[in-house]
Amino acid sequence: MWRMQMRRQRIGRRCQRLRQQLQQHGRAWLEQLQQRRAWRVDCARPRHSHSPDGSFHQAVAPVLVLAQCFSLMPVRGVRAASAQGLYFSRHSWRTWYSLAYICCTSVDTLFTINLAVHGTLDVRSVEPIVFHGSILWGSYHFLQLARRWPALMRRWAHVEQQLPGYENWRQREHLTRRIHSVSLALLTLSLMEHLLSILSAVYHDYCPMRKDPIESYLYADAQQLFYVFPYSNWLGWLGKIQNVMLTFGWNYIDLFVIIVGMGLSELLARLKHQLQHLVERPMPELFWTYVRTRYRSIVELIYDVDEAVSGIMLISFGSNLYFVCLQLLKSINKMPSIVHAVYFYFSLSFLIGRSLSVLLFVSSVHDRAREPLRLLQLVPPGGYHGEVSRLASELSSDNVALSGLRFFSITRKLCLAVAGSIVTYELVLIQFHEDEKSWDCVAQPPLH
Amino acid sequence: MWRMQMRRQRIGRRCQRLRQQLQQHGRAWLEQLQQRRAWRVDCARPRHSHSPDGSFHQAVAPVLVLAQCFSLMPVRGVRAASAQGLYFSRHSWRTWYSLAYICCTSVDTLFTINLAVHGTLDVRSVEPIVFHGSILWGSYHFLQLARRWPALMRRWAHVEQQLPGYENWRQREHLTRRIHSVSLALLTLSLMEHLLSILSAVYHDYCPMRKDPIESYLYADAQQLFYVFPYSNWLGWLGKIQNVMLTFGWNYIDLFVIIVGMGLSELLARLKHQLQHLVERPMPELFWTYVRTRYRSIVELIYDVDEAVSGIMLISFGSNLYFVCLQLLKSINKMPSIVHAVYFYFSLSFLIGRSLSVLLFVSSVHDRAREPLRLLQLVPPGGYHGEVSRLASELSSDNVALSGLRFFSITRKLCLAVAGSIVTYELVLIQFHEDEKSWDCVAQPPLH
Amino acid sequence: MWRMQMRRQRIGRRCQRLRQQLQQHGRAWLEQLQQRRAWRVDCARPRHSHSPDGSFHQAVAPVLVLAQCFSLMPVRGVRAASAQGLYFSRHSWRTWYSLAYICCTSVDTLFTINLAVHGTLDVRSVEPIVFHGSILWGSYHFLQLARRWPALMRRWAHVEQQLPGYENWRQREHLTRRIHSVSLALLTLSLMEHLLSILSAVYHDYCPMRKDPIESYLYADAQQLFYVFPYSNWLGWLGKIQNVMLTFGWNYIDLFVIIVGMGLSELLARLKHQLQHLVERPMPELFWTYVRTRYRSIVELIYDVDEAVSGIMLISFGSNLYFVCLQLLKSINKMPSIVHAVYFYFSLSFLIGRSLSVLLFVSSVHDRAREPLRLLQLVPPGGYHGEVSRLASELSSDNVALSGLRFFSITRKLCLAVAGSIVTYELVLIQFHEDEKSWDCVAQPPLH
Amino acid sequence: MWRMQMRRQRIGRRCQRLRQQLQQHGRAWLEQLQQRRAWRVDCARPRHSHSPDGSFHQAVAPVLVLAQCFSLMPVRGVRAASAQGLYFSRHSWRTWYSLAYICCTSVDTLFTINLAVHGTLDVRSVEPIVFHGSILWGSYHFLQLARRWPALMRRWAHVEQQLPGYENWRQREHLTRRIHSVSLALLTLSLMEHLLSILSAVYHDYCPMRKDPIESYLYADAQQLFYVFPYSNWLGWLGKIQNVMLTFGWNYIDLFVIIVGMGLSELLARLKHQLQHLVERPMPELFWTYVRTRYRSIVELIYDVDEAVSGIMLISFGSNLYFVCLQLLKSINKMPSIVHAVYFYFSLSFLIGRSLSVLLFVSSVHDRAREPLRLLQLVPPGGYHGEVSRLASELSSDNVALSGLRFFSITRKLCLAVAGSIVTYELVLIQFHEDEKSWDCVAQPPLH
Repeated sequence: MWRMQMRRQRIGRRCQRLRQQLQQHGRAWLEQLQQRRAWRVDCARPRHSHSPDGSFHQAVAPVLVLAQCFSLMPVRGVRAASAQGLYFSRHSWRTWYSLAYICCTSVDTLFTINLAVHGTLDVRSVEPIVFHGSILWGSYHFLQLARRWPALMRRWAHVEQQLPGYENWRQREHLTRRIHSVSLALLTLSLMEHLLSILSAVYHDYCPMRKDPIESYLYADAQQLFYVFPYSNWLGWLGKIQNVMLTFGWNYIDLFVIIVGMGLSELLARLKHQLQHLVERPMPELFWTYVRTRYRSIVELIYDVDEAVSGIMLISFGSNLYFVCLQLLKSINKMPSIVHAVYFYFSLSFLIGRSLSVLLFVSSVHDRAREPLRLLQLVPPGGYHGEVSRLASELSSDNVALSGLRFFSITRKLCLAVAGSIVTYELVLIQFHEDEKSWDCVAQPPLH
Repeated sequence: MWRMQMRRQRIGRRCQRLRQQLQQHGRAWLEQLQQRRAWRVDCARPRHSHSPDGSFHQAVAPVLVLAQCFSLMPVRGVRAASAQGLYFSRHSWRTWYSLAYICCTSVDTLFTINLAVHGTLDVRSVEPIVFHGSILWGSYHFLQLARRWPALMRRWAHVEQQLPGYENWRQREHLTRRIHSVSLALLTLSLMEHLLSILSAVYHDYCPMRKDPIESYLYADAQQLFYVFPYSNWLGWLGKIQNVMLTFGWNYIDLFVIIVGMGLSELLARLKHQLQHLVERPMPELFWTYVRTRYRSIVELIYDVDEAVSGIMLISFGSNLYFVCLQLLKSINKMPSIVHAVYFYFSLSFLIGRSLSVLLFVSSVHDRAREPLRLLQLVPPGGYHGEVSRLASELSSDNVALSGLRFFSITRKLCLAVAGSIVTYELVLIQFHEDEKSWDCVAQPPLH
Repeated sequence: MWRMQMRRQRIGRRCQRLRQQLQQHGRAWLEQLQQRRAWRVDCARPRHSHSPDGSFHQAVAPVLVLAQCFSLMPVRGVRAASAQGLYFSRHSWRTWYSLAYICCTSVDTLFTINLAVHGTLDVRSVEPIVFHGSILWGSYHFLQLARRWPALMRRWAHVEQQLPGYENWRQREHLTRRIHSVSLALLTLSLMEHLLSILSAVYHDYCPMRKDPIESYLYADAQQLFYVFPYSNWLGWLGKIQNVMLTFGWNYIDLFVIIVGMGLSELLARLKHQLQHLVERPMPELFWTYVRTRYRSIVELIYDVDEAVSGIMLISFGSNLYFVCLQLLKSINKMPSIVHAVYFYFSLSFLIGRSLSVLLFVSSVHDRAREPLRLLQLVPPGGYHGEVSRLASELSSDNVALSGLRFFSITRKLCLAVAGSIVTYELVLIQFHEDEKSWDCVAQPPLH
Repeated sequence: MWRMQMRRQRIGRRCQRLRQQLQQHGRAWLEQLQQRRAWRVDCARPRHSHSPDGSFHQAVAPVLVLAQCFSLMPVRGVRAASAQGLYFSRHSWRTWYSLAYICCTSVDTLFTINLAVHGTLDVRSVEPIVFHGSILWGSYHFLQLARRWPALMRRWAHVEQQLPGYENWRQREHLTRRIHSVSLALLTLSLMEHLLSILSAVYHDYCPMRKDPIESYLYADAQQLFYVFPYSNWLGWLGKIQNVMLTFGWNYIDLFVIIVGMGLSELLARLKHQLQHLVERPMPELFWTYVRTRYRSIVELIYDVDEAVSGIMLISFGSNLYFVCLQLLKSINKMPSIVHAVYFYFSLSFLIGRSLSVLLFVSSVHDRAREPLRLLQLVPPGGYHGEVSRLASELSSDNVALSGLRFFSITRKLCLAVAGSIVTYELVLIQFHEDEKSWDCVAQPPLH
């Protein structure tokens, strides 16, 4: 019994020594952190001009440039070295380009509505209206967002700078590489989908409206125009250009939402990465104040970003839900040719895959924001200061997530609710026996 | 290393000095607050008699006066200078007027049920019953509410007086202006909708029951009466007056719910506004006791108001859900004339817009009640007293929201659930093929 | 400024004195409480033998006696003066009576299944199977419950004794009076409903199977027997007795669930009543330990009761859901006579009213268990001990409610979910066009 | 009054003494615990080699061996004495066997898809595709799991060793016996179900495709092959073997999920069992640190296991949902013979029972993880250290449960949601009038 007591005393002393060492370690870490931060503010970060500095602003630049080619996000300075270079001007050609596009789309939407009300109205015939309407609304939201983008990016950059620095170039380029590869993949697939749609329409036209297949394709593509005006080639090509821009916009809404989700997740992942290494040591209270304020600044950024982009989120989710329902409904039809079947199933897979990606990338913000709570539970009793307890209770009462105009939070569980709704709606919709009219020429609105 | 330590000591000292200054500031602020409050109780607030003092009681007065013209809310003294002037009396002409109206509506409802049971019962033919029934129930609830209104308003005024004063006249008139403009907008639109309904019915009568268009309109409007009695002009006009009063009541239920939501949100917004400026400073604990008790008194007021008006909430939400479903169902019909189409789509938009406004205004109470939690997370470690922690845990365990008889809380997320239900019910209902009978004369119940 | 400081000091001193007085008050209260409790254990409570002592055991006694007449709940000593007198014996005539009833019902259920499988199986033809099956399962659960009842009631009595005593006879008789009046109302209405059903069947037999109306009624009532055996009067009367007992059991399941809900709510209400008066004073910590352990013992009792009765809850809710759906489905039929219509709508209203009562009474346990949390928020800062904080956090993490085999908690919000499901199922079911066969003689299974 | 005070002092002193004794007890307990753990690491646990040591690794061994016979879970050393003996090798025959099986199943799935696309596609004709696809996906997941299994089992064993030892052999063998009996029951029932399916198909072939009943059965069983190849006996038997393996895999997925759920529940139950005896005594803070870290290590294990098996969970729940819907849909059909009816209802009961078991066993992990929270509420005020409060707040903010790829948590409440969905889908599906084609020979895809 006595030996036991001796041993316990010895263990106790060893523990104390260890704790002291760890606390010294913690203090040293804190000093190091403050120095690094000080250094960061002081000196001018000399680095190769073309290598990315790991900021979201730089990572997202090429995607924004592409969007501007298609008249979305008319903000200036997206290729600037830092977020300080961003600004919005009403007199920029980008803004005028964007406004012109919105006007054209509005007119096109009116033509589309005109075409639809002269046919029969059901869940399928409103497809072009939903397509036009959602992109029109999206373009308007992007214009609004462009005005808030510079301030938002500066705030984002501020949050990024407060986080611990990257350990190596691989980490620094991680976000940039991810964003670029996802953008490339999604845009390539959407291009392929569009080309396949042209191919299947041109070479296997099941109810030709003009003799020339190209003309017939242009005719079908801009039906809403030729319902009002007589056919002319230049109007057909104009309609085609409009159609390409709309299709790009339709894909870009989802891409943008994915990228924002990735950027915010990355911030939380960086904080977690740092926490992971230190959480099991008895760190000083100041460290936890540091973590809490960092976490808080990220969460405040998420709330701000959500306020700015949740309109676009709502469009993205709403239109995806509608189009998945619609395409699944069409999938019960017989395909007129093998090219149509290939196009249709490729298109359906692409649509479902894109929708699922949006949901998973965006919901990862919610998942990552909960992760520190799990890490906090590993803090040893000796290092469980009031600040840790405060952080834990704040984390558990928070409900951090991007949202669709705050009508719904985007979490992984939403996926199941959406899937359940799709199955229900599908089962009910199939009962309308839409099969007959879909690949049928006479079901098209009459032409003059 | 030594210089570093020196610098850190210097920073430490500066921080301490700053903290002391801030604490002094906090104490001064608290004294100022107590003085202001004391002053408020002592002196008699000499102000121009016609300028609003920013109280909910004064802001809501014109709306209540209008309601009393249409026999709702028979409480006396709504135009009194303060809530002290309110009282309810059984022997007031307002009460008798209200009781008479309820009796008339009951009789009218019985006639309506009589008409419906002699026709076919389906989701569409019960429309007049639901319309009459919900307004009857609403009128009864308003009568009950009138008895509780004086005590409720006095409590409300008490809570208002405890909150920090307004900084300028713009803030003071903010609530009044908002309530008046929303009331004006909603009532104007409802008047337009009613006039359009008369226009479309009189000038484009698709199945005239009498030769004279006015007579035919009166006949159709009070069909439940003329199913029992032979046609006479004075009975027709009586039915029309009853119909106008019902229509006003139907709109007023929603308006009242919106106004209550706005008033409660305003209280929370005022507290938040004050908190926002002080939250990042290390305030003394007494300040947080002050904030907590203020917040608590607002929440208790919300609970009391909810108990008093949740019956009206339930009617409002239930009837809106039913009528939106029904109008959407009618929207698949062919319109007999362009005037009908204009009326129908205006009416549908008005109905959806009104329902959405109710939901958004009322749910803002829930959103605003959560906001202080986000602000508390910005409190610096030095000022994080036990009271702050208590307030934070109370805020996160509370679930403050107005409700429909406590069967459902009214939050922004409810909107999605309601929209999902509407789509589901709509898809199922459409399968009944209601199209044929709706604009069809013979579908009307036979007349003797 | 100096006068201000003086005044504040004076206020401070006055506050301190007040606090001391209140703390003395609190201590006195605590002593009083301990004395009262001591007194309670020591002396023999001399009271008029027939007056209720306010215990749940005594309040529920007449209802259990009635149940035993109909062979449910075979526990002995339900009329004993205290819960100590309760015991369960396998050799009691009550147990044998109950077992015999279960056997008879099992045989009757088999006959019913036999009848159903020879007809067409749909949502309507399984009605007798659901009716028999749910009561059979209920009877079995009551038999099981009888074994646990004595221990449960003793525990309940123990919890009751720990709560503060009643202040006057009105409070003491409150629970007893409520339980008796609810039981009386429900049983009277169910008797009326049964007599109306006989009346409508005998005097307005729309497809007589025998010449004599009484015989024809008995025939229809015990159709499952006469599908196998030839008709005989004594078998008819036996079937009728069985049917009366089943109908009583069907109503009793709901009544029992309501009574249990009322009893548990009353316990929480008593604790709240005491808390309400003391919560705004700075009570000593021991008081809060007292409140917390009392609250805890009630909650543990609720968990135990839930474990014992949640099987019966599930039957009650499941069968109510099914029968409400079914009756609503029948409501679209034309009634063959006015007596049928009266019976049908009375029966439907009774069913909906009974189901709603069950839900509201049982969900009040959940509501009342949350109420102390709201009261705790009024505790002044001076009296906010660690125990108060602990109680608050326990209350907010608890989710106290009765449940249906823990598959669902019974809260007020369940009501909306159930109502939504009923509307959905109803809309879908109506599409099966069940109208034709329901009041039709040939739709009955063929008889030999 | 004075005697009262004396008595209270005496009681106070007694209490203090009791508390000291209990604290000594607590310390002694802690020492004992440390010794026992030390002893456990030091000595070599001499025990009879065949008696189970109560570890999950040993309990699950026979089930894994059986799975390996059917080519699932190709991990080596499942029969080793401890988890240290487990390892995964790419060059093991088990891995090759598993890969070969996956290849075969892939080819078979392609044949099945080929068969289906040449028939009509509806909810029923995709049955073989769902069956093949889910098992293929499951097999792939098991292969992936085999790679992670050794590390996972070692971690599991580590957690088990940290928990308090068993008190007697009955406790030690408890888990083993439960796992073996559940496995035996489920596999026996599934074997019976399969034999009954053969019996009903061979002896009551309602639309024979070959003269010989055995041949006809083999033909029907491997229809997807004979749609491409001409009939031959050896191909028929090959198809039968494949079919048996698929059926085993289909049942094994559910069995595996049940066993994992049982194992994790057992860990939590052991911790709770220990806590139950000590929770009402004032234990030292170190005890609570011990409990908290033990609880934390179990929860971390649950998270890890969830990450490893949640893919299999998703397949299990998804396929069960689909097959229950499908079988219920088939249940409205007329059965061609009594043997078919017996088989069908046995199969349906087995399917529903198996699905329900999966849900209940797996959801018990969530229920058990909440249980300590209820126990913590019984901790006396004297022993309510900071660690207890921390554990309580961690428990209430955690949401520990196994999940289906984190799309849904598996709790008891999920059951109701699933049941509600099944009823809804069923009601909608029945409207497709699938009755005619199901037991009909011509509805089968044409054969060449």
